[in-house]
This record gives sequence, C-alpha cells and structure tokens, in this order.
Amino acid sequence: MSDSLSQILKEIKPLDRKAMEAARVRQDELTKPGGSLGRLEELSVQIAGIKGKIISGFDRKAIITMAADHGVVTEGVSLYPQEVTRQMVFNFLNGGAGINVLARFIGARVVVVDMGVAGDLPAHPNLISKKIALGTKNMAKQAAMPPDEALRAIEAGIEIVEGEVAKGLDIVGTGDMGIGNTTASSAICAAITGESVEKVTGRGVGLPNEQLAHKAQIIQKVLELNKPNPRDPIDVLARVGGFEIGGLAGVMLGAAAHRVPVVIDGFISGAAALIATELSPGLKDYLIAAHLSAESGHKVLLQYLGLTPLLNLGMRLGEGTGAALGMAIVEAAVRTLAEMVTFSEAG
Amino acid sequence: MSDSLSQILKEIKPLDRKAMEAARVRQDELTKPGGSLGRLEELSVQIAGIKGKIISGFDRKAIITMAADHGVVTEGVSLYPQEVTRQMVFNFLNGGAGINVLARFIGARVVVVDMGVAGDLPAHPNLISKKIALGTKNMAKQAAMPPDEALRAIEAGIEIVEGEVAKGLDIVGTGDMGIGNTTASSAICAAITGESVEKVTGRGVGLPNEQLAHKAQIIQKVLELNKPNPRDPIDVLARVGGFEIGGLAGVMLGAAAHRVPVVIDGFISGAAALIATELSPGLKDYLIAAHLSAESGHKVLLQYLGLTPLLNLGMRLGEGTGAALGMAIVEAAVRTLAEMVTFSEAG
Repeated sequence: MSDSLSQILKEIKPLDRKAMEAARVRQDELTKPGGSLGRLEELSVQIAGIKGKIISGFDRKAIITMAADHGVVTEGVSLYPQEVTRQMVFNFLNGGAGINVLARFIGARVVVVDMGVAGDLPAHPNLISKKIALGTKNMAKQAAMPPDEALRAIEAGIEIVEGEVAKGLDIVGTGDMGIGNTTASSAICAAITGESVEKVTGRGVGLPNEQLAHKAQIIQKVLELNKPNPRDPIDVLARVGGFEIGGLAGVMLGAAAHRVPVVIDGFISGAAALIATELSPGLKDYLIAAHLSAESGHKVLLQYLGLTPLLNLGMRLGEGTGAALGMAIVEAAVRTLAEMVTFSEAG
Repeated sequence: MSDSLSQILKEIKPLDRKAMEAARVRQDELTKPGGSLGRLEELSVQIAGIKGKIISGFDRKAIITMAADHGVVTEGVSLYPQEVTRQMVFNFLNGGAGINVLARFIGARVVVVDMGVAGDLPAHPNLISKKIALGTKNMAKQAAMPPDEALRAIEAGIEIVEGEVAKGLDIVGTGDMGIGNTTASSAICAAITGESVEKVTGRGVGLPNEQLAHKAQIIQKVLELNKPNPRDPIDVLARVGGFEIGGLAGVMLGAAAHRVPVVIDGFISGAAALIATELSPGLKDYLIAAHLSAESGHKVLLQYLGLTPLLNLGMRLGEGTGAALGMAIVEAAVRTLAEMVTFSEAG
C-alpha cells in the first residue's frame, strides 16, 4: 500500500456522535409524529454525523462518472461492442446521456473521468484523463492489471475527489461506464462475499439466457485462474477488477476522508464499495446506497455491505443515474430536518 | 349523483395510445440499453398518455393538502387531540410543516383546504375554505355524514382542482391532515376491498398495541353499525368516511378530467382513491402511487387498486409529503425522455 493511500485511510474518522444526537433530538421536536418521516429521519442523522453538524442542504453536488474498458469483452460477455464505452464518454461530454439529464435535474455537476478507455479521447474541458491503460487485460487469460495499476487507479480516484473538494463539494455520487464491467463486478462480488458466481451474475445490458450462462462460466474461469485473495482488496481489484472500479473505490475513500457523504449508484459502484470498505471498514458510515439495481448481484452485495437501498425502480443503466435520484432523497431528508419548525417554534 | 359529478366522470377519457406508443419508440431510441431506466420509462409513457404528447417537464406543480376532523376521535382511536388538526393547518399556512419543506424543494405550491376542521380558522390568503361541517359525526354511533355532504365534499374537491387548473397545473399531488383519519380510511378500505379490519388497521401516528386493538374494535363496530354498501362509493364515504377524503377523491376525478396526472400520497389519499376509482374505474390510469406508507392497510389498498408505489421509505406523515417526493421521480422520468439524445442524434 502506498503512503498516500495509507494516509487517506487514517483520515477516515468515525461519525460525530454528538451531532447525530443533536439531529435525533431535533427530529423528535419537529411538528410531526416521531419517526413519521421514516428513512428521511435516519438519513438526516447520518448526514449530521458525517458533517459534524446539522446542515441546511447541499449547495455543491457532483456525480463522478468514471469510464474504462475491460479486456474480458473478447470472451463474449457483453451484448455491446467495446467502442460503446468511448462513444458514451462523448455523449457525457455533450450532455445527452441519462446522467447529464438527471444531474441537471438535481443541480449536480457531472465529472467525467477517463480511467482507461480503450481508445483515444480528445482533450475536452469537461473530461479529466487519468487513463491507466487502454483497458484491462483479458482476465480469463491473466490478471486484469498488475498490482501497481490497481493502486494507481485508487489513488487517481482520491485525487479526483480531492480536486472536487477543493472546488467545493457537499455531497458526491458515483457513476460508471464500461462495456464488460458487470463481469468484473460479479467477479469482485463473488471473490469478496464468497457467494456463488451464479448468484452474483446478471444480464448486464440484457443478455439472453444462453449468453448469461456463458458469462457465468467465464467469471468462474476468471476466478479459478486468478485466485484473488479475498482478504487483500488490492489483489482482488488487480486480478479481477477494472480501472473505473478502482477509481470509484478511491473516490469513496477520499470523500469520506474529507467528511463528504457518498451516494453510491448500482452494481459497479457497489463492487467499488466492496473494495473500498475492505480497505476501510469505517467507510461504510459515509455511504448511502441510492437504489437497488435490477442487476441480480447487487442485492447480495448490499446485504454484505449492510446497506439498504433508498430506491427500487428497476433501473440498471449505471452512469450514476441511480445516485442522482438517491441524492435528491438525501437532500429532502436534510432539508426537512433543517427547515421544519419544532412544536415550540410553532407555538 | 349530482349533474356536475356526472359530467366530470364523463370527461375522464382513456389515455392517448398514440402518444404512449411515440414515447415507447423514443425510449427505445435513447442512448441507453432498452428498459434500463426501469420504472422511469414506464412513468414517461404513462405521462405521455395522460398529456397526449411527450412533454419536457412540469413547470406548474401543486400539492393539494386537505384538512378535516373526525367525530370518531371521541372513541379514543388516536394518540393526538383533535385540536392538532387545526394547529397543523396554521403550520401549513406559516410554511413550517413537512409538506411545506418538501414542496419548496421540488418547486410545487401547497394548496391548503379546510374541508371540515372542528374549529374556526381565520381568513388567510393561502387557505381555501370549503368547510362542510365542524368535523364528521362519531361514526361509532351514526353515519359520519349525510349523503348530501359526501357529495358536496367530492364536488368541493373538483372545484378546488379546477381552480388550480385555471391558474396552471401540470401535475398534482394529494395530501391530508386530520386527527382520526386513519380510522376512517381503514373503514373505507375494509368496506371496499373486503379485507378484514385487522389487516387494514394500523398504528396511525404510533398507537401502542393495546390501543391498536381498541381501534380495530371501534372500526369493526363502525362497519357493523353503518353497513356501508361496497358497490356505492358515495354511501361508503357518507357512512364511514371523512370530508378531506371526499375532497381528495374529487381532486383526483377533477384532475383526470383535465388530463392532469395525480400523484397520490399514502393511506388516506389511497382511501380517497378507492372512493374515486369506484366512481370512475378509468381514473386509475391517471394515478401514480408515490410511496408505500408504513401504515399497514396501505399495501392492501394499493394491491386492490393495482398500483405499485414508487418509494418505500417507511414514511407515514401524510400531508402530501410522500407525494412530493414521488413527484420528483415522475419529473425525472419525463425529463429523461425529453432531454436524453437518441443514438442517431448522438451519431
């Protein structure tokens, strides 16, 4: 582990119990029956614990969407060609993708990061390049990446989020783009949770039954070949992961170190959370699971993380689209705590 | 049935199938895997069907929150005194309640209506008075209201929503306030769905076990005494309902007649939807269930209506708070359909 990663892990502190207690006390004084705002109340307490105080809202929001390619696509695990990753990055930069629309709707900026797209991307004012390589290796034949690239991917994520913190960041959401990345995420999920490949492998963008079985076979092969060590998350990331997954793990760790709440999107962000929380179990307190993805392994992963998703809308697009909607719920929670009057204020 | 109600029922037309098909076609052309936005896609199709075209968003949003009192509270079915209904109306008018905060957050106006609060409310620019009576009668001793008052309550709701349509209304949410109104809603739910009182009776603002059993006994007594006719929704409303419930049923019918989508809140709005859809089965296509309330009868009621709630956040505050959050999800759906680019647009 590098010095900079070790340093970030040390900076992730427990939540502020006093601020949480103050939030709970205020919740019980608001003009409503105690507990009647359900999860909104819990969220408001968690956010107070992260921020160290009761806050009025999130003025500065960002969704960090990281893109990378996966060598394993040559094994026929995805319906879409690899080139789609690059095309979707252009779409993000032009503002026409789902995440652009939903981020605009909630008032968040989208930070697009090339973590390892298999092709050139021209310089663009809204694109941050942290390209580690032109996609991972085919992990059905060898490790997805060497350990130093895994570490660099995590560190790149930390740098990205620290750059956003420097600009001003009150809450962050995570998002991904990468053809083949449900395959890597399923492999990570099986490796870390110990669940069967079958249980954590889903249809991605919509594989039919026959190809789903093939995908599960490939993931089984990947795990048998690479033997990722479940007690070493960097090893798991290197052997069966992806650059955007490592980057997102870094975003989560870096955000928590700066006491910024993290709204995690679906299955790929969840796989990143598995890596990140194995590095720092205390990170969990900073995470909010936005939604339950239709991708079948996501439920397994969230249960392992002990996170209950806010939404269940059958979404499986990625990009941070679920995170954007989840962020709106979290902001609603914070605002009710801040803006509702207490019984004594109301007289 | 009055002429004005008959007229409104005639004006509720089927959804526009052509507009729905156009929305489906566009959804499949957007830059995402087909179906990957899950329920957002379904919502965008439903809204196109209601509006008769693909729209860009909801500029003019309102939550209509109706308040009234319930004579049955003298039977000890609620933890809170009746006076709280009136106090909460003041809170709505002063902008300090949960619904005020969440409506501001989503950019909706709150329309506060006195449908039958048991006490005087001073004139206020933001309060609409449609007071039918100073609360319903104690339905454990007699019918909650005479049939003509039930009809007037529904008609008042139609008038209210038509007034809002005249001001400009692209989508409406429903909300309620009324100490004792879960008791009336449970009675309506049992009467119309045929489910047992036990299954549809919940804790309201938080009754302990002993009082919950007492509440169920009272509801049983109410039903045995009044014998509401499940095939006559006005009879059900009159015998075991409430003024705000009738008003909200009218809001739903009036909105649908003007092709305005209706986001229904929790259990009390659900009871109003039972009354309204029995009057007009075609209304269902205009309804969107915002959330699953923690109140136990709500699930029964939504299943009967064939509606799947968007959110499940353990909320049970009423006022329209769930509807406000649900409305944000519906707007997200509409915006993704309108603003995302298609594959051909993206090149």
